[in-house]
Amino acid sequence: MTEQISKLYPNGPLNTAYAQFFTGNSYLRNLISDPDINVGVGEVSFEPGCRNHWHIHHDGFQLLIVTGGEGWYQEAGFPARKLHVGDTVVTKDGVKHWHGATKDSWFSHIAITAGTPEWLVAVSDADYNALED
Amino acid sequence: MTEQISKLYPNGPLNTAYAQFFTGNSYLRNLISDPDINVGVGEVSFEPGCRNHWHIHHDGFQLLIVTGGEGWYQEAGFPARKLHVGDTVVTKDGVKHWHGATKDSWFSHIAITAGTPEWLVAVSDADYNALED
Repeated sequence: MTEQISKLYPNGPLNTAYAQFFTGNSYLRNLISDPDINVGVGEVSFEPGCRNHWHIHHDGFQLLIVTGGEGWYQEAGFPARKLHVGDTVVTKDGVKHWHGATKDSWFSHIAITAGTPEWLVAVSDADYNALED
Repeated sequence: MTEQISKLYPNGPLNTAYAQFFTGNSYLRNLISDPDINVGVGEVSFEPGCRNHWHIHHDGFQLLIVTGGEGWYQEAGFPARKLHVGDTVVTKDGVKHWHGATKDSWFSHIAITAGTPEWLVAVSDADYNALED
């Protein structure tokens, strides 16, 4: 069963398109996808423990607006940052990063994305489990 | 007194910078403003009856995500569209439009904006009051 934690939307459908780039189940609600607009907007909801793989946005950026629950954001070489409702994240062109839920909470964010993603290795269980909820 | 209707944020400070382009009081919370990112993100909260003037985004666009209350969006030559929590709006380059609260409700939306705005005439009381709440 999915649990709605977003303050704005019920969880979207199971995110099968990107499942290969995630550890655990996520749900994706497309919000804005328009050929005349160079950013796409969607809401991603992560079950507890779910996170995406390390990835990079090339020739673009990603902006996150947290809409529910508690999660993590980490850029390579920096400590993970705990995220709560209303927090925002700016990921600049070329920056290696990942994001996802905490071990014990669902997590939802709006993502505003430009450019082309490059997907890298998964966040290991050892690294993820070492984060302090 | 301001009334928080956004599901995500308390109202930001009184929107004095753009007050000359609004009828009524609005409140603006800056969320993302970064010289390396070609869109800005903020949440605007409108008191009941408040709306912005007709305007155009040149060499850009504006995306709205409704975060609370009830409002209106209208493009020149089309009927006004009633907006509720979770609704999204895409305003393309060069399109003349306005947005704001209904007469009886506070209204909040996130705005994702690129390009340069051109501000035009106010939405007249006659036209605004003719809208059916």
